[in-house]
Parts: sequence; structure tokens; C-alpha cells
Amino acid sequence: MKIVKSISVLRKVVCSLKRRGKTIGFVPTMGFLHEGHLSLVRRAKKENDVVVVSIYINPAQFGPKEDFKNYPRDLRRDTRLLRGLCDLLFIPSVKEMVAQESRTFIEVRRLSDLLCGRTRKGHFSGVATVVAKLFNIVAPDAAYFGQKDAQQAVVLEQMAADLNFSAKMVVMPVVREKNGLAMSSRNVYLSDKEKAEAVVLFQALKSAEHMVAAGSRDTKKIIRTLYDFISRTPSARIDYIEIVDKKTLESVSTIKREALLLLAVHVGSTRLIDNTILKVK
Amino acid sequence: MKIVKSISVLRKVVCSLKRRGKTIGFVPTMGFLHEGHLSLVRRAKKENDVVVVSIYINPAQFGPKEDFKNYPRDLRRDTRLLRGLCDLLFIPSVKEMVAQESRTFIEVRRLSDLLCGRTRKGHFSGVATVVAKLFNIVAPDAAYFGQKDAQQAVVLEQMAADLNFSAKMVVMPVVREKNGLAMSSRNVYLSDKEKAEAVVLFQALKSAEHMVAAGSRDTKKIIRTLYDFISRTPSARIDYIEIVDKKTLESVSTIKREALLLLAVHVGSTRLIDNTILKVK
Repeated sequence: MKIVKSISVLRKVVCSLKRRGKTIGFVPTMGFLHEGHLSLVRRAKKENDVVVVSIYINPAQFGPKEDFKNYPRDLRRDTRLLRGLCDLLFIPSVKEMVAQESRTFIEVRRLSDLLCGRTRKGHFSGVATVVAKLFNIVAPDAAYFGQKDAQQAVVLEQMAADLNFSAKMVVMPVVREKNGLAMSSRNVYLSDKEKAEAVVLFQALKSAEHMVAAGSRDTKKIIRTLYDFISRTPSARIDYIEIVDKKTLESVSTIKREALLLLAVHVGSTRLIDNTILKVK
Repeated sequence: MKIVKSISVLRKVVCSLKRRGKTIGFVPTMGFLHEGHLSLVRRAKKENDVVVVSIYINPAQFGPKEDFKNYPRDLRRDTRLLRGLCDLLFIPSVKEMVAQESRTFIEVRRLSDLLCGRTRKGHFSGVATVVAKLFNIVAPDAAYFGQKDAQQAVVLEQMAADLNFSAKMVVMPVVREKNGLAMSSRNVYLSDKEKAEAVVLFQALKSAEHMVAAGSRDTKKIIRTLYDFISRTPSARIDYIEIVDKKTLESVSTIKREALLLLAVHVGSTRLIDNTILKVK
């Protein structure tokens, strides 16, 4: 695995790969890798000649009161985990990525203002903009994202289509701990007690799936049940529970076809998100 | 010259060119070509293995009261003019370029709200977004723009740098009619009388250059003189006259280094723009 820190070096490597007809699979990450990330890297490896993983904690996607400074970092561990799976590890500094004062922002309207966008102003613009930058540097044939960040995946798929990026967008299933907790770099913020209590998100998703399987279609009823269920966990504070259209992210009142159930819940001081696709048979 | 209307076909051609190590020069246009455009195409040909010209009248950069519908078109003439100069002519339809309802907009903040941006809301976002789309389709090594649209050039250079587009951005001088009128597709809107009167823009630029050469540095004074001068032409209605920093487009009060003088003037019902760089020796 080659480690590259400079944009111009990465461009040269990419250019030479393209000339040799090699396809590039790309996994953009913020590091502190877990099995969720690694599932993307493995899939990228399976589908492409060369896999590029980037580790870049993007300041532009953190709000002023968010955890940019404290976001977990462990580059040595990340490097070890990627060895044998990844061909090129791209680790640019903030200075390398933001060489001049940036005035350009990519806005994916409507999709970015809903759900997490309501409390995380500017977050998805920061994500879309940095992913566009990375796409322009890495020039991937395919890019891999986790369904864990469901809204992010929808925003980026929309952006890639609207801006004619040539990369195929691949979204892979949530990877979970044994107890059902969705893997996330931010789980490291949880105490053992909180980690156990955080399972309430997964349990809530499962109970919604069961309700739908049993014939429930009224999203208000389902959401109310989940509110009551999650609220029984004292350390849990609900940010939102919503059932939305998979593509437009707009609320649905009656589940007629596949719909996306999303949760954002603070457990202690850590904000967790999780989601599932509710299927109607 | 190969004419391509489909994005997927163009991508395939580009991909095969890249594999053969060919460099691509790109000239995005809205057609109705004049010598200004052709100077870009010739320069692109000189500096690259292959030249791609696009002709696409981008609805997203026209305001609701602007001339999208009446924008001059003459594809047969354009094709004839490009023969021998251009290798690939890309003429996508609006349906091809906007395959789904687009939600993604590129905003180049501050630069887009000044000058022409004050009256043409959303114009530069429309321009930036379509150029990003075209860059993602054509994957140029270099792209060529006219200094005639000075603000557009600044906005696009900022965007390309901020989003790490790999294309080198080349801006070429204004090409003028014999009488000094800057070439523009919209000149076709002018009657012969208006065309003669429209020379007032060029004359104003020249007199500003002379003032600066003679030692004038106070931009207020220069601008006032130009106002008086242009106002003497009855069919001319001034939109703005500004002297700004070449990169930030912010007004300067005293000319200390190179500054950009920009004019927007309605002649009859046609809005014309022109500009010059004021040089301090």
C-alpha cells in the first residue's frame, strides 16, 4: 500500500493508472476505521483494479459546536487495518485540501435541509463539496459509501447524478456490532453503559420492521410507538424519528412501497444515527 | 470533426483518448460562434492533442425575464466555422444535460453577487454548475474562456481551484470588431445604428486607460468621467461602471496595481458588457 499526502502526486499516479486502463474504486473516509469502512474497501477491491482510500477529517462538514477537534483519530491503526486491502491511501492535510480561502460550495437543495440537515446547518454542503473535490482528485470509476449515513448517501447520489460525475455510486449495508449497534467511529465516545443502552436504536428499527411486517402502514402510529419505546431508556434523547421516501427524503404518511426509517438519538452526550428500509411485501 | 450528442458516447471517446495518453483542450460555448470563440479553439488546438468544443445553451444561467428563448442559434454555421479547428463537437440537448430534476447548485460566494450578479440573480451559479457538469463529462486537461466575460472567468477560475478540477484554466483576450466593439453573440440584436453607438463602451475603456496612463488613480473620478461620457449617447443606459480587484472583484478606491474596469450598458434593448485591465506602470 502506497501512502500519498500530496494532491499532485496522487493525480500523477491516477493518470498513469488510467493510461494503463486500470479502474479505480474509491472509499472516502474520515479515518478511525471500523468494519463498516472495511466492508466498503473489500467491495471496492472486488470490483476494481485499484482501490484508493482517503482519510480526511473535513472541517467544512462540522458545525462550530460540533466535534471536529475531538473527532477520533488513529492513523497508525487505520494504516494497519488497510494493509492488504487498499492500494493507495490518500491522507491530505487540511492545508493541502484548502490551499486558498474557498468560496465554492455545492448545495444539494431540499435533501440537505431535512432530517440531520435541520440541526446540522451546512453539514451536507460541506460533505458534498469535499466529495466533489476528492472525486476531482481521485477520478474514481466507482465510489463506495455506507448506508449507515443514509441521508449522506442520498445527497451524494443526487449530486453525482446532477453534476455528471462519472463514478458509479455504490451504497453498502450498515455493519453492526453483535448486539445490533450500528458501527460508527463516534461509538468510541460511548461509555460501556451507554453502549449497552444505545442498542435501543437497533431495537426500535427492528420493532418498526415487525410492525410493518404485521400490516402497519400508518407512519404516525409507528413513529409514536418508537418514541415511546426509545423514551423508556433514560440516557436517550430523541432528535428525530422519521419515515421518508428513499429518494426524495420527504415524509410519507402511509407506507405503500419501500420507505426509509431514520433515527437520530442522543445517548448521553453522543449523537447516534441509524436507519432501516421498511419493506412492504 | 466528429459530432457527438450523447454524454455516454462522449465519455467513451474521452476514455479511449486518455488511454492513448492524449491531452484534451475544451472550449465550452453557447454557440452562435464568432472570432472570439474561434481564438479560444485555435489556442486549444495549439496546446492540446484533441480539441472538444461544446455548444449548449444552458437554461440555468438565464433569468426568467432573460433571452433564453431568443438567444441566437445557427448550428449549421457554427459547424462550418469549426471544421478543421475542432476534433469533437459536443451538442447535447437540454434533456440530455438535465436528465432528472436537478437539485445541485454550485455557488461561488461573494464573486457571484457582485457586478452582473446584482441584476442577474442565479446567473453565475447556473454558469458554474453547467461548467462543472461539462468538465465531468469532457475531463479536459485545459479549458479556454474569453476575458470578454471577465466576471465569469474569475468565478470559474475560483471554482476550478476550490473544487480541485484538474483542468488548467486559460483566459484569452477580448476580440473586437474593427471599430472596437467587443465581439458577442448578442451583438446580432443590435441595429446598425446601435452597433455604431455601442462603440461608446470601447471608447470609454480607452479613455479610462488614457486617464490612468496620465496619472489618474482615483477610481471615483474615473468612473464619474465615464458616466458623463457614456451618458452622452442617447441610446445608452448604464447598468454599472466599476473598477475592482482582478481576483476578488471588490471595488478599489485608488488604483495601486492592475485593476479591472468593467462596464455593463444597455444599448437600446440589448445589454452589453466590456472590460479592460487598467495597468499602472
